Amino acid sequence: MWNDNKLTRLLGIQYPIIQAGMAGSTTASLVATVSEKGGLGTIGAGYFSIDKLESEIKAVKEKSSQPFGVNLFVPNQNATVNPLQVDQMNEWLKPYRRAFHLEEPVVNIDETQKFNEAVNMIIKYKVPICSFTFGIPDALTIKKLKEHQVILIGTATTVEEAIENEKAGIDIVVAQGSEAGGHRGAFLQIGHSTEPMVGTMSLVPQIVDHVSIPVVAAGGIMDERGLLASLMLGAQGVQMGTAFLTSHESGANELLKDTILKSKETDTVVTNVFSGKNARGINNQFVKEMNEYQGDIPDYPIQNQLTAQIRKAAVQQGESELTHIWSGQSPRLAEKQKAADLIERMVSRINDMSNL
Amino acid sequence: MWNDNKLTRLLGIQYPIIQAGMAGSTTASLVATVSEKGGLGTIGAGYFSIDKLESEIKAVKEKSSQPFGVNLFVPNQNATVNPLQVDQMNEWLKPYRRAFHLEEPVVNIDETQKFNEAVNMIIKYKVPICSFTFGIPDALTIKKLKEHQVILIGTATTVEEAIENEKAGIDIVVAQGSEAGGHRGAFLQIGHSTEPMVGTMSLVPQIVDHVSIPVVAAGGIMDERGLLASLMLGAQGVQMGTAFLTSHESGANELLKDTILKSKETDTVVTNVFSGKNARGINNQFVKEMNEYQGDIPDYPIQNQLTAQIRKAAVQQGESELTHIWSGQSPRLAEKQKAADLIERMVSRINDMSNL
Repeated sequence: MWNDNKLTRLLGIQYPIIQAGMAGSTTASLVATVSEKGGLGTIGAGYFSIDKLESEIKAVKEKSSQPFGVNLFVPNQNATVNPLQVDQMNEWLKPYRRAFHLEEPVVNIDETQKFNEAVNMIIKYKVPICSFTFGIPDALTIKKLKEHQVILIGTATTVEEAIENEKAGIDIVVAQGSEAGGHRGAFLQIGHSTEPMVGTMSLVPQIVDHVSIPVVAAGGIMDERGLLASLMLGAQGVQMGTAFLTSHESGANELLKDTILKSKETDTVVTNVFSGKNARGINNQFVKEMNEYQGDIPDYPIQNQLTAQIRKAAVQQGESELTHIWSGQSPRLAEKQKAADLIERMVSRINDMSNL
Repeated sequence: MWNDNKLTRLLGIQYPIIQAGMAGSTTASLVATVSEKGGLGTIGAGYFSIDKLESEIKAVKEKSSQPFGVNLFVPNQNATVNPLQVDQMNEWLKPYRRAFHLEEPVVNIDETQKFNEAVNMIIKYKVPICSFTFGIPDALTIKKLKEHQVILIGTATTVEEAIENEKAGIDIVVAQGSEAGGHRGAFLQIGHSTEPMVGTMSLVPQIVDHVSIPVVAAGGIMDERGLLASLMLGAQGVQMGTAFLTSHESGANELLKDTILKSKETDTVVTNVFSGKNARGINNQFVKEMNEYQGDIPDYPIQNQLTAQIRKAAVQQGESELTHIWSGQSPRLAEKQKAADLIERMVSRINDMSNL
């Protein structure tokens, strides 16, 4: 079952199970545990300062000598600030800020410097794997990372995006189906006004047929059933977010974990109201109220910065209706468990089946 | 691989492959071929007159002595006509009718009598299997069919809908993921304004965990990869629509088959503009033009009747932009092939794998 898997060979891991980046919710303990158990732990560095990234890399290395990855958000070079739109959004967000005694934040749109510093940090600490969300880094960054033997993992929500990843020299591509929780990795514009939400069952085999790099399935995968199904579709492994988000080692607030654990498959929506980019999470009061302003939501990273403090304060005050609760479409399969137990159970059940 | 499958035993078939109802596109030749090859062929009777249903049943029985099914649309007892809305829609449809020299149709909302006659026809001709879309028939209908040993297959797009099917005494439930082409089987209202589109990878295991009747996976399944993946998720088999729609035996117009065959996974949308009920198909001019009137589309079956002649005329005149072209999210996996070859290839590839 576990032999001759291109993905595990390339990553130097035992089982083809990747813990998703989950920016804001990974801990050194989670990352190290997943890697120690034979999967690939990933530091979700999307929102980290460069100092925080350094301390997390060090902390993971102290806890484990196994391969692990860092997930980065690729900056949008074309992002622009529309001051009128920002003013308007600040007006709409006033009631929330007032409730939590918050000031208007200063918006900083250029994330390129931070991204480049993160790339250098990955090289400096010889992190073996780097994964990307929101696009493909520029050719120079890819060249630099590859010269330092960093294995690169990209994200695709369509066949075309997977082909672009392969063309750019990315080593592995995650096929992110519409079931996936958290941010959509979509980065190519298509004809429709709305993002194509292609389900995992459709997306994986169509991508597998069009690229020769290993494909990792993501979206709706919570247990050994999802892993086996993904392998049957031609994927070489899986990436799991929600399943690790409710684990003991996850950095997500207990309030948010509990909300996911009592949610149903019909409770999630895809929305850009939290960050300016589409992401799947549990439908709640903030989503419903902000939906009124659809079409006027500033792009990522602006909206993300405008709502960040509100969401943080909401969580601190136990107010789950006013923060993002990323979740895929399988919350009924989520469990409160040790990350190690999740991996062990998946592996042992598959081993049992193979021995039948 | 094929032994001890609850679904095949219950249906009296060899392989757990069901050809979807595909109202308007099945032929006696397609149904008989699928059943002769060991799967379950299904007459899509949703739009049939009672005479047409009788002649189709007779034609299938002449071609095959294997089990086959009839798919019926469950009538909506609460459907009402809003005359102002119908007048408005007729106004909007005028340019299309003018182009094809068509008259305004007379709207007939009550489909209950037709449904009851179809049920009697199924009993009269001892059709062994009956499947339902758009809901669960009333208790009396279920009782009558079961007294005549008809095996009943329901459709669910959520866990709750699957549970309702089991409670009502339905024998098998199709878990229809968001990838699926054609009409959505959704029938229970939920809190959101929009229909929850749960992907197959998420939907199947969550339904499997909540019912004890056999679950059939549908949505995005086109080949042996999809069948094996579905079995891994806990389904007992698959239902395939798009894969059979482009087969030689399908009744779909060649123009529509060709459109699917050159489409990509990003080319489909879910829309109610053709029939008044949500359905997935290739995005085209009619969808885009009618999207302007979202919120004012009359309910099924009214909109279906208002647009039926326009769509028929469009196909006859080779105008694929003005008719529905139902397709799931895997058109890149569609092939122009004999239905028999599709089944044979799936089965033989799986047999080859089992013999490794």
